Amino acid sequence: MKRTKVKDLLASTQPMSDVTAKGWVRTFRNNQFIALNDGSTIHNIQCVVDFENTPEETLKRITTGAAVSVVGDLVESQGAGQKFEIQVKTLEILGDSDAEKFPMQPKKHSLEFLRDNAHLRVRTNAFGAIMRVRSVLAAAVHQYFQEQGFVYVNTPIITGADAEGAGEMFQVSALDMNNPPRNEDGTINYKEDFFGHQTNLTVSGQLEGEAFAMALGQIYTFGPTFRAENSNTSRHLAEFWMIEPEVAFNDLHDNMDLAEDFIRYVIKYTVDKCQDDLKFLEGRLIDEEKSKPQDQRSEMNLLDKLNFVLENNFKRVSYTEAIDILRDSTPNKKKKFQYVINEWGADLQSEHERFLVEKHFKSPVIVYDYPANIKSFYMRLNEDGKTVGAMDILFPGIGEIVGGSQREERYDVLVEKMRKIGIDEKELWWYLDTRRFGTAVHSGFGLGFERLVLFVTGMTNIRDVIPFPRTPGNAEF
Amino acid sequence: MKRTKVKDLLASTQPMSDVTAKGWVRTFRNNQFIALNDGSTIHNIQCVVDFENTPEETLKRITTGAAVSVVGDLVESQGAGQKFEIQVKTLEILGDSDAEKFPMQPKKHSLEFLRDNAHLRVRTNAFGAIMRVRSVLAAAVHQYFQEQGFVYVNTPIITGADAEGAGEMFQVSALDMNNPPRNEDGTINYKEDFFGHQTNLTVSGQLEGEAFAMALGQIYTFGPTFRAENSNTSRHLAEFWMIEPEVAFNDLHDNMDLAEDFIRYVIKYTVDKCQDDLKFLEGRLIDEEKSKPQDQRSEMNLLDKLNFVLENNFKRVSYTEAIDILRDSTPNKKKKFQYVINEWGADLQSEHERFLVEKHFKSPVIVYDYPANIKSFYMRLNEDGKTVGAMDILFPGIGEIVGGSQREERYDVLVEKMRKIGIDEKELWWYLDTRRFGTAVHSGFGLGFERLVLFVTGMTNIRDVIPFPRTPGNAEF
Repeated sequence: MKRTKVKDLLASTQPMSDVTAKGWVRTFRNNQFIALNDGSTIHNIQCVVDFENTPEETLKRITTGAAVSVVGDLVESQGAGQKFEIQVKTLEILGDSDAEKFPMQPKKHSLEFLRDNAHLRVRTNAFGAIMRVRSVLAAAVHQYFQEQGFVYVNTPIITGADAEGAGEMFQVSALDMNNPPRNEDGTINYKEDFFGHQTNLTVSGQLEGEAFAMALGQIYTFGPTFRAENSNTSRHLAEFWMIEPEVAFNDLHDNMDLAEDFIRYVIKYTVDKCQDDLKFLEGRLIDEEKSKPQDQRSEMNLLDKLNFVLENNFKRVSYTEAIDILRDSTPNKKKKFQYVINEWGADLQSEHERFLVEKHFKSPVIVYDYPANIKSFYMRLNEDGKTVGAMDILFPGIGEIVGGSQREERYDVLVEKMRKIGIDEKELWWYLDTRRFGTAVHSGFGLGFERLVLFVTGMTNIRDVIPFPRTPGNAEF
Repeated sequence: MKRTKVKDLLASTQPMSDVTAKGWVRTFRNNQFIALNDGSTIHNIQCVVDFENTPEETLKRITTGAAVSVVGDLVESQGAGQKFEIQVKTLEILGDSDAEKFPMQPKKHSLEFLRDNAHLRVRTNAFGAIMRVRSVLAAAVHQYFQEQGFVYVNTPIITGADAEGAGEMFQVSALDMNNPPRNEDGTINYKEDFFGHQTNLTVSGQLEGEAFAMALGQIYTFGPTFRAENSNTSRHLAEFWMIEPEVAFNDLHDNMDLAEDFIRYVIKYTVDKCQDDLKFLEGRLIDEEKSKPQDQRSEMNLLDKLNFVLENNFKRVSYTEAIDILRDSTPNKKKKFQYVINEWGADLQSEHERFLVEKHFKSPVIVYDYPANIKSFYMRLNEDGKTVGAMDILFPGIGEIVGGSQREERYDVLVEKMRKIGIDEKELWWYLDTRRFGTAVHSGFGLGFERLVLFVTGMTNIRDVIPFPRTPGNAEF
């Protein structure tokens, strides 16, 4: 008989006879009460086993982690905490789980231990919730852009180009590296490699995205990007998913409007659809913070924090204004910042971004019009000749969640900037073509998807919001 | 003033004054009529320039490919072929396009030429249409699975595992390959590499997807996968996007039902939303086939073919039945097949698949229960001991579009198969864990997204349905 999902059983409005449920045992109490979960919801359904008429041998196999199939009647529950339960008529053990060996015991495990068991951690309440929320957030991304008429573009993963003009990249090759073909000077002869030249994993789809925006008007990417930076932090992954919209005819302020509207939409969509999971994660966060001193705890609970973002505009402040605020701030005057802000032109460090967001504005902040020399070559030079039309969105607890800009659409200005920093025009001939033929004002941004998932789930380590994290020394699974 | 998209202007129900449109000039006729496109639709809007009051200098700059902004009144058109046009009041050239240098001339270009200009080909009608259709198909994929309660899972791109137990893979490394650290025996010391061991680009997210299905119940992936096979064909890419759903408690027949329902849903969704683009592509195909002999032309027009798939069940036939049909077929008896089918156990070649689909059944076909020794280790051994619960979906003109199976959920059977073909159990310890703890019947499949786009757009070369194709010798852009 077809199984009914636990989510649908729990949402039933009336009792039903002879339902089939299949899932995994979370707990088994009093030789009678199975808490059964099938991943469709964070909630378990209670299955009441007729233990007097069930062989002892079977009862022993109802252990945490075991897969079981039950057939029975869905009846109103006498117990607290659930409306319905299943009075089990027949029970079948589909797959055993040796209680002594199963790593996911019904107790609290450390996040580190769970990371080492990324294939099983998703069977816990917290990681089931995180992965469902992540999935709904991803759906919201597509929904938003599709509704607005954006075209989803899969920019290449293997590439010869390097959008940032720098950045440590992973190399991709099909050569036998222990015995590669060589040039006369002893270097590897990449002409013999699969693509006929050296290739890397993409760090951004922006440049290709720009080319497509210059034809389709509004596009977005949503795919994996890579950084071979040896950053062993709670905010960095070597492989992460990035969303990069690009819009023809949008200037920097249109770009900020789009980013803000987009973030608000996807959070609202997810809050609406994931109430149960988010409530669970909110409770988890409260528990976790109990061990922290009062002043290090979050000022708002998770759902309040998300609603705050929905209801309040992000503060917009130019880099120049931000520098003034920081220079006059108490931690700057008292030299509490590791990097004291003395003058215009300084790069903003994480401590400064946090001060602006968490102490000064107490709100997400958009900083725009940065000094040209601390930003990328493709950003549009402003009329002042010293700033570019860049914007970063900073979030509490997360830091930079969006980096975007109006792009330099003027061929001559772009070429001059490329020459200055030594980017070969021949390498980017096709990118320059977009400025040679029908160039126009355009803007876009990149949003690190995992940082958004961090914010929405209230988790604090980026390794806990992606199924199988890739970090220095770790590509298991 | 905010621009209005061409799509919205053309969909207007009434005249409007002072609208702004921005886009690229497709053609400029009689010094008066601009066909303007902004990528929002395949249709251009006609902008009528008041050439008597426009400087000659400006008129000269209205060339194919130039970006322009026009302000004017949207009025009913006197000309044929459009309901509305813009009577231009002011026109601004945003970006010039030197008519002699712009590669996308208003004429027919070869597909080969366009591939070499993948950054600009999207400015043609055909590639604009293909990319919009591709985007809507991708949206349909997410919509289908999300509606059904599947969880979207981003399985890792960089991996140590190899789902196929074979397959040529791209290697990923952050080492300086011209001067790598070496072991005493002279081989490269990958312990010094970024991840501490050798890594590759994934060929499939299936194994990780299975682990997640064993917790979340129903999952799907949709991400890039890679093959370093030197296949210079119209059906293969080195980098392509794959969709891989995996469902706990589904057997092989549930799996076929899911695949068929899914394919039909996404095609219907796209046919409904992309009428204009598909009609254009249908016309393109008819034009293209005019140069072919009658018997090589498609039997059905594009939209008829898509509707046929929507209205007819896929034929399901066991491998054993398929072999009987092929053995008794005229091309087999007359030895017209390159590989004559003599006995049960033969692998089906493309010519056999095409015969079944295009000649015998004249319908999409699902072949299931293949001989175990021509299929992968993870497929479930049937009771007969010689076939596995595999299924391939074959499409006219495309060949295999889906490959799936019920997975071997029995620990002992799986381990024995792995040993037989020499897969290290230690490598896949985590995969085996899914069979050690709460194993259950489960099934899934992989669908090559570009093959689906090929089918829906009527294109014949897979390089023409992905933005920037990666093939042997080609990773430009």
